[in-house]
Amino acid sequence: MPSHVANINADFKGKDIMTTNQFVREDVDIVLDEADAMAEMVNAEGRSDLLDDLVVANLFYEASTRTFLSFEAAAKRLGALTIATQGVEYSSISKGETLEDTIRTVESYADTITLRHPEVGSAAAAAAVSEVPVINGGDGNGEHPTQALTDLHMIRSRLNDIYDLKVTMVGDLKNGRTVHSLARLLSLYGAEINYVSPKELAMPKSIVDEIAPLSEQYQTENLEDVIADTDVLYVTRVQKERFLPEGGLFKEIRARRAYDKLKDSYLIDKQVMKKAKEDCILAHPLPRVNEIATELDNDPRAAYFDQVKSGMYVRMGLLALINGRTITQQF
Amino acid sequence: MPSHVANINADFKGKDIMTTNQFVREDVDIVLDEADAMAEMVNAEGRSDLLDDLVVANLFYEASTRTFLSFEAAAKRLGALTIATQGVEYSSISKGETLEDTIRTVESYADTITLRHPEVGSAAAAAAVSEVPVINGGDGNGEHPTQALTDLHMIRSRLNDIYDLKVTMVGDLKNGRTVHSLARLLSLYGAEINYVSPKELAMPKSIVDEIAPLSEQYQTENLEDVIADTDVLYVTRVQKERFLPEGGLFKEIRARRAYDKLKDSYLIDKQVMKKAKEDCILAHPLPRVNEIATELDNDPRAAYFDQVKSGMYVRMGLLALINGRTITQQF
Amino acid sequence: MPSHVANINADFKGKDIMTTNQFVREDVDIVLDEADAMAEMVNAEGRSDLLDDLVVANLFYEASTRTFLSFEAAAKRLGALTIATQGVEYSSISKGETLEDTIRTVESYADTITLRHPEVGSAAAAAAVSEVPVINGGDGNGEHPTQALTDLHMIRSRLNDIYDLKVTMVGDLKNGRTVHSLARLLSLYGAEINYVSPKELAMPKSIVDEIAPLSEQYQTENLEDVIADTDVLYVTRVQKERFLPEGGLFKEIRARRAYDKLKDSYLIDKQVMKKAKEDCILAHPLPRVNEIATELDNDPRAAYFDQVKSGMYVRMGLLALINGRTITQQF
Repeated sequence: MPSHVANINADFKGKDIMTTNQFVREDVDIVLDEADAMAEMVNAEGRSDLLDDLVVANLFYEASTRTFLSFEAAAKRLGALTIATQGVEYSSISKGETLEDTIRTVESYADTITLRHPEVGSAAAAAAVSEVPVINGGDGNGEHPTQALTDLHMIRSRLNDIYDLKVTMVGDLKNGRTVHSLARLLSLYGAEINYVSPKELAMPKSIVDEIAPLSEQYQTENLEDVIADTDVLYVTRVQKERFLPEGGLFKEIRARRAYDKLKDSYLIDKQVMKKAKEDCILAHPLPRVNEIATELDNDPRAAYFDQVKSGMYVRMGLLALINGRTITQQF
Repeated sequence: MPSHVANINADFKGKDIMTTNQFVREDVDIVLDEADAMAEMVNAEGRSDLLDDLVVANLFYEASTRTFLSFEAAAKRLGALTIATQGVEYSSISKGETLEDTIRTVESYADTITLRHPEVGSAAAAAAVSEVPVINGGDGNGEHPTQALTDLHMIRSRLNDIYDLKVTMVGDLKNGRTVHSLARLLSLYGAEINYVSPKELAMPKSIVDEIAPLSEQYQTENLEDVIADTDVLYVTRVQKERFLPEGGLFKEIRARRAYDKLKDSYLIDKQVMKKAKEDCILAHPLPRVNEIATELDNDPRAAYFDQVKSGMYVRMGLLALINGRTITQQF
Repeated sequence: MPSHVANINADFKGKDIMTTNQFVREDVDIVLDEADAMAEMVNAEGRSDLLDDLVVANLFYEASTRTFLSFEAAAKRLGALTIATQGVEYSSISKGETLEDTIRTVESYADTITLRHPEVGSAAAAAAVSEVPVINGGDGNGEHPTQALTDLHMIRSRLNDIYDLKVTMVGDLKNGRTVHSLARLLSLYGAEINYVSPKELAMPKSIVDEIAPLSEQYQTENLEDVIADTDVLYVTRVQKERFLPEGGLFKEIRARRAYDKLKDSYLIDKQVMKKAKEDCILAHPLPRVNEIATELDNDPRAAYFDQVKSGMYVRMGLLALINGRTITQQF
């Protein structure tokens, strides 16, 4: 991680949230506990005035209704004002301004900045110049730390315990930034992780090597090998936008073929879920295209819509923590 | 109407607002009275904290500054937080997600959802999966119930009485969803309705048949036949976007010709209004293109800008009613 | 200026803010003092409830993240609700509505309207029909009064005194609306102004003539002539969007060549700044493209990022003043 990105070590105040690499297990526990406290507060009172003297800027340079609304709702539920912008065409960037200049502008208006940007490394570049904390809301094929924390919060809410889980990840494990971050977090709790994907979309060796000291890992192309003994089945979208070719018509045709072939592989439906355990969790970071059949939406094991609330609570928790005011302290 | 869309029967709490078909006359009276109370509150105090623990999501998948700002202002004037998104390109839909999945996501953040969407039936599809009330903010060529209630509120504010009106509707009565909804509501109060349009844009037979038991109706191509005896002259925009051809260059050329021919028919100007009564109301759902000459804007009979405030009050009233907290009860 | 645009004469309440021509020196002093009070309030308490019964509409029909967020933050820091729209494609204008009709709609929702629009004269056209005060947030190649006030506030904050300054303006002085407005304001305080630009981008004669009674002015193509004796070096962006040709391929090619040639002229870097005074201010309205080298960002004379906060304070001050409630009066 960039040298200016600090480890958390139980001290969130003023820190940027860039990557799951910043977190040790204690840090993750703190976030999940704070998110739980937020859930209680929201259920009891709807909103709080914890951050009501602060301004949160949500800068989204890439389409993402779900993450945008989640950060907006999180900040507003804590009483913060938000200023927001969606879409690169409204930005100074379209006039040739650098991201760094934009951030140095926005930090004058805001106490915290969330940045969603299509380029890897953009969040780190923003954090490097910003005097206020920056949260990485997804930087292209790079990191998406709040999503991985969201997944973990949802799993803990469902299973109460996140130690020593047997987790199976399915789909595009090469380009799916969420599975990279999630694998790291799960390893902190001693998970055994199965990777199910075609070879060309396998989990990168760098990630596998990184978490090898903490987690048993197993790679296969065949979901049947592992489904029966899985606690959490984590299915990912095959992301069309990550198949964008770098140039040339042939490359584009090849990319489309690869996309078409893969988007239907590993479709999870009732038939597949018959082989899964009764108390297994079926998860997906959303949006899904057709990786999980809608016939499973009412299956009690389907947990993908639960993630949405977890996402809001986790983001509320992070906003509170990096601004040095936890709801646990207040109440 | 879809089977899951419930009749109101004076009980709004938790109900979706999909179509004017849900309303009997008593229901309309309740909305108009609540809107009146909202107008009083806004004039006296600017805003209320009636819904200050709630979050309203305004999802606009179609260009509509007017309706968007109206719903935003309505929710905010009642103290609700709003989370909003405008334009399909920022949506998960552009990544292939279904509307149903989007709604199941947004309901986790919000207590009420307003949906504006270009496809007929989209609002009903959203309501079918949502656990929180959904308001149809216009679904393409389908329904736009809050606009029809807005028109009726404006008429009542001007005339004090909405029973037994003589109403003349002019323009594209085939594709104008607002006139369909408004005709239904007016019939509840025994209106006589004149339809003035070219034959190919006449009021659909299904609507005419539906309200025949309640309203006298008369069709003509000639505004002169009816203008002198009209209480409310309701002029509609000839909507270019409803002329979109389904395919083929010939179809497109034909559609453009039809649009050009019709957009200038029935232009209302000073000359035309000389034949109208002194206490007639000239109404239009806005935006207008050139159906009403601007030389009429200062005519005391011109009521089209009045509709804007009525729209905010009606939407405030509906938000209060479906959340089970009317301002009448609070004060 | 249009006849309906009123001079301020120390009475801001209910006035439109269209052009720096409305201001005499006393008016500018009032704005700057109110902005100072806003800065104090924000630093002490974050926000105020001064305008908490008001709604501010921010209508942005042109890309401008910086100005948009500044107006949003300004209104929200004063407790006002905001309703906002960005981008022409979401507007009624795309359905053929006139700007005047849009304004007559929005004034029903809002107590103040800010308009950013690509066409010269649009703000005045809006103000002509609006019953609520309109602030010109930039109308194409026309005026941008809040930016000029922002620049002046930044200069006064840095230098404490704004009388009799020696100011050098560099770059595209023909098309840069900000330098036109700023030159007028500076002349009220007896500034000597140097204009450094290629001949084809010189300060328009109309402006030079207008302020000649108040300011000494000097034109040159050579920055070296004047830099050593400059208190404020004001560098402007060469605006690509102002080079848009009116038609024809040849015109487009010529326009691009002219843009490419000019955008790199007068690059300010360390080498250039060696010749400037120790206590000189280096300013830029932002966004910059490459007019100022980033190697200067940490030079203590670099003041361009200071302008951002000044912009928020000035807009807060104006919102308070035109709504007849100054923070000075409240505290």
